[in-house]
Amino acid sequence: MRIAIIGYGGVGRAFLRLLLEKKDELLNEGIVPNVKYVIASKGGVYNPNGIDIEEFINYSKTNKDIMKFSKGNTQQITFNNIIENKDVDVVIEMTPTNKKTGEPGMTHIVKSLENGFHVITANKGPILLAYRKLREIASKNKVQLGIGCTTGGALPTINGGLIDMAGSTIQSIEGVLNGTTNFILNEMETNKVEYVEALKKAQQLGIAETDPTLDVEGWDTAIKLLILTNVLMEEEKKLEDIEVEGISKIKASEIFEASKKGKKYKLVGKAVRLEDGLDMSVRLEKLDPSNPLYGVDGKNKGVRYVSDTLGDLTIIGGASGVTPAAASILRDLINIKRGYKFII
Amino acid sequence: MRIAIIGYGGVGRAFLRLLLEKKDELLNEGIVPNVKYVIASKGGVYNPNGIDIEEFINYSKTNKDIMKFSKGNTQQITFNNIIENKDVDVVIEMTPTNKKTGEPGMTHIVKSLENGFHVITANKGPILLAYRKLREIASKNKVQLGIGCTTGGALPTINGGLIDMAGSTIQSIEGVLNGTTNFILNEMETNKVEYVEALKKAQQLGIAETDPTLDVEGWDTAIKLLILTNVLMEEEKKLEDIEVEGISKIKASEIFEASKKGKKYKLVGKAVRLEDGLDMSVRLEKLDPSNPLYGVDGKNKGVRYVSDTLGDLTIIGGASGVTPAAASILRDLINIKRGYKFII
Repeated sequence: MRIAIIGYGGVGRAFLRLLLEKKDELLNEGIVPNVKYVIASKGGVYNPNGIDIEEFINYSKTNKDIMKFSKGNTQQITFNNIIENKDVDVVIEMTPTNKKTGEPGMTHIVKSLENGFHVITANKGPILLAYRKLREIASKNKVQLGIGCTTGGALPTINGGLIDMAGSTIQSIEGVLNGTTNFILNEMETNKVEYVEALKKAQQLGIAETDPTLDVEGWDTAIKLLILTNVLMEEEKKLEDIEVEGISKIKASEIFEASKKGKKYKLVGKAVRLEDGLDMSVRLEKLDPSNPLYGVDGKNKGVRYVSDTLGDLTIIGGASGVTPAAASILRDLINIKRGYKFII
Repeated sequence: MRIAIIGYGGVGRAFLRLLLEKKDELLNEGIVPNVKYVIASKGGVYNPNGIDIEEFINYSKTNKDIMKFSKGNTQQITFNNIIENKDVDVVIEMTPTNKKTGEPGMTHIVKSLENGFHVITANKGPILLAYRKLREIASKNKVQLGIGCTTGGALPTINGGLIDMAGSTIQSIEGVLNGTTNFILNEMETNKVEYVEALKKAQQLGIAETDPTLDVEGWDTAIKLLILTNVLMEEEKKLEDIEVEGISKIKASEIFEASKKGKKYKLVGKAVRLEDGLDMSVRLEKLDPSNPLYGVDGKNKGVRYVSDTLGDLTIIGGASGVTPAAASILRDLINIKRGYKFII
């Protein structure tokens, strides 16, 4: 399988490592990975015979500029060369997310699909902005678009809705989809501290970013909910259609009161089909232990689908980190190789 | 898609109803169901042009002997005629389970696969006794074998392990897989009654059978655990390899004591990879609310997989009843149509 990797951050590195570590398992699937391109923001390398992955990983550990990797036949290259050469089967798009334009991922995905390459992406931007359009391009060109990594990484939210609910209509989606807020709420409960202190700890541990707005104000949850809703409920909603509330106003005393009654606060994203349309929200909810999302702790995420014929399905898991994220990309790759048509 | 239905009990009826109710959704998948055969224990009917499903359902509501259904070109028939005629794409095998011989399902499945028909089955017997052999026959004949219904019905245990964990190695399986014991344990906790009384109520409600041994002594859980282990962990274990304990010895006082500490007893089936082999057991375990299987209540089932690269995955759901079971067969049918290779 001839592969191009676009975007070479933590997940890209972890993905290359997985290709080596999972060599035997991949061979069992009939997959012999042949990575022809690795392209970072300023350009990258190309080897028509395949890049020596082990050498490349070692090189890039100590050398920031991957374009200088020159082992074997390796040449310097940019994205457009992939389109000119037309010598890959799948493009793995992992450039940073831009939620306004989707670029540069949008162009990479569109051009790759149009040229008959499967695409697997970790990039939320293009999926958020243009899933339906991208699906149409993929369908027209008879290739697949794997987006499992965009909504929970290792947590199989997309598979759960598309494959495990096949033949059933999803009537509502409910999810605890953001690890950072989950951690902060847990921290407030366990150590009886206020929000500001819990956030500081999350930042010290690298769990929350310096500017935590995206997570704590609910936007990360909203984005994931939006992608799930549009993909699984055949909608074309926008972020503006979601009522979004964050967690910054909750008091330790409220969490403590809830805890005394055996309940837990979680930031829940919800899309519910009503008679007059779809109601979408992100807000703090007090869950009791009988709710299957109650047990979703700091490390995990969870989502619950309610359907007409297959009942409820709750999926909990999805360890955080670059390896699980890379493993979710590898999962899409294997499932596409096994013949699965995410897009018909 | 040309279909043969073997076994016409509650799930078979529900499946035919779903084919009608989900007509539009199936058309979107490119599936136009053409049911050529419906065969019950004494024989059945065949129509080379397709049986009129609506007429057939109505007929079979009031007429026990489906062989007398004679609308259109319909003829009386037995299983062997399917093999002679070779005019179907998929055989849905739903005859009653025999755990000693697997028959008559075993013969139906083997012959169908050998003749190049996909098989989807709700029958645990053949899968329990000979999954590996059946997988080999399917692989050799380039057809698929859908077994999602055999281990939890609507709960996507097989999909979860095969598709959602693709590329990852499952290190342990842990499941609350039996609805009847779950109901009895709930009943003992909620109404503070002893086992015998809770069992009686379950029997009155039709949740437990007159001879409840299979459920309450843990064998149903053991069978499902065995299938999951052999399919998802590449094992060839037998029922004798599992240490099986039921729930009949638990006292209401023990459940009450656990409940006071916020814990719940569940009948848990477990397969854990250890350095010196695989440890398999079915026994009562006291779960605390942080365990994702804690929230699996009377109506639902749940399973948890621990993997190397994709973290933990817990799947909870799977409403009981003939419609969800039939919907899980339809799910396998759709996923096979979408090109998925459960078997490579």
